[in-house]
Amino acid sequence: MEKPLILVTNDDGITAPGLRKLIALMKQLGEVVVVAPDSPQSGMGHAITIDNTLYSKKMTIDKDNGASLEYSCSGTPADCVKLALQELLPKKPDIVVSGINHGSNASINVIYSGTMSAAIEAGIEGLPAIGFSLCDYKWDANFDGFDKEIKQIVSEALTNGLPKGTVLNVNIPKTDGKPVKGIRVCRQAKANWKEKFDKRFSPSGKEYYWLTGEFELLDKGEDTDIFALNNNYISVVPTQFDLTAHHAMQTLNNWNLNE
Amino acid sequence: MEKPLILVTNDDGITAPGLRKLIALMKQLGEVVVVAPDSPQSGMGHAITIDNTLYSKKMTIDKDNGASLEYSCSGTPADCVKLALQELLPKKPDIVVSGINHGSNASINVIYSGTMSAAIEAGIEGLPAIGFSLCDYKWDANFDGFDKEIKQIVSEALTNGLPKGTVLNVNIPKTDGKPVKGIRVCRQAKANWKEKFDKRFSPSGKEYYWLTGEFELLDKGEDTDIFALNNNYISVVPTQFDLTAHHAMQTLNNWNLNE
Repeated sequence: MEKPLILVTNDDGITAPGLRKLIALMKQLGEVVVVAPDSPQSGMGHAITIDNTLYSKKMTIDKDNGASLEYSCSGTPADCVKLALQELLPKKPDIVVSGINHGSNASINVIYSGTMSAAIEAGIEGLPAIGFSLCDYKWDANFDGFDKEIKQIVSEALTNGLPKGTVLNVNIPKTDGKPVKGIRVCRQAKANWKEKFDKRFSPSGKEYYWLTGEFELLDKGEDTDIFALNNNYISVVPTQFDLTAHHAMQTLNNWNLNE
Repeated sequence: MEKPLILVTNDDGITAPGLRKLIALMKQLGEVVVVAPDSPQSGMGHAITIDNTLYSKKMTIDKDNGASLEYSCSGTPADCVKLALQELLPKKPDIVVSGINHGSNASINVIYSGTMSAAIEAGIEGLPAIGFSLCDYKWDANFDGFDKEIKQIVSEALTNGLPKGTVLNVNIPKTDGKPVKGIRVCRQAKANWKEKFDKRFSPSGKEYYWLTGEFELLDKGEDTDIFALNNNYISVVPTQFDLTAHHAMQTLNNWNLNE
């Protein structure tokens, strides 16, 4: 049987250790092609480049352990997927994986996530797709302790496909190299960010802000991704890109909109 | 009774005619404060600025018809809302409206939309929020023919609030100034973009791409936003930011993830 073709991308950029780890794992499952941003794209949400040009460059990052084919791209994670599928890949991939992100994309973070936007873009194109994120923002985060679980999730997706209209948002607890406890299928926990703007003045006296904030969990459920992660389980949330709130339609139909 | 406080923002930038139109309409319903990007941010999805500084500037764009208070902001639409709520507004607004976007955000476009990311950001913060988009990309698009309908939708949202966890994605058909037929509550039509990359060479011989594409409708339903728009109705889609695909959880629970 032919080896599956796996497209690997991320939002931390093509040199990120989390991407390198994912490439190494995916090479055990199939043929790997990388198309990843040439610079960090964290917090890019589902941005695409429509008013600017895109560049891509074939490159070799790690001669011994890298993928057979790697490209950097000047765009966002969603751009990388579009360009890969349309221009760079020799054929349609069997699966698209994104990450491993340096930092959590659990709960409401999925909305801001470049990692997940790459997976969602692939999902829109009808491909099985998974975003992986480790709950550790550090560049030198420890990516050991969950090799088996990542390969298992990707293998199951390759075997079974994914439920229609969904991609997977996989988050991995920070265990500093110790094994995780297992894998839990979860829902996205309700939460938001309590923003705080750090106001400063430039050397020339101009006022500016840094966005900072604290994660505020508004959900005590034990079936959420945050609960799973807090208990050292990997969380798997099926994530959809049809944003229609079907449950709200009846209420709106009772509004006085057409007299 | 005190007039409601209305925050107006957009993704085409603070000078865009669509924003100016929305300000004029909202001034008929309440007190208006504007916090909008200082440059176009189309296609920014739910991007936020986390690795860069943010600037804002109090300004007067249109002395006679503008809002009582206007700020431009160097960030994305989501940044504008965060900064407005946290730093710039005198008090919590009663509603946040975004637009009127020059161009459709119906169907799958909601995912890429800066206009809607502003509304979603406000929704995450627990505020009623609505994104408005006109299906005409031109800067000098005709924003007449639907004053009454926009005011009606905002009035109803102010009176009733919005169903929990939802914001509204409102799209307006291009009628070139003729009245629309009415308003329809819809679901998001299934569709994607068939990308085409326009490959070119720079003066120095470097290869680059422009992202282009064709909208591909994959949905024959008569309850969709695209169907409503094609029939000259304004479409109102309740839009959620909890992306959990609840219907897919049972399938995933049957996967072989924890042996």
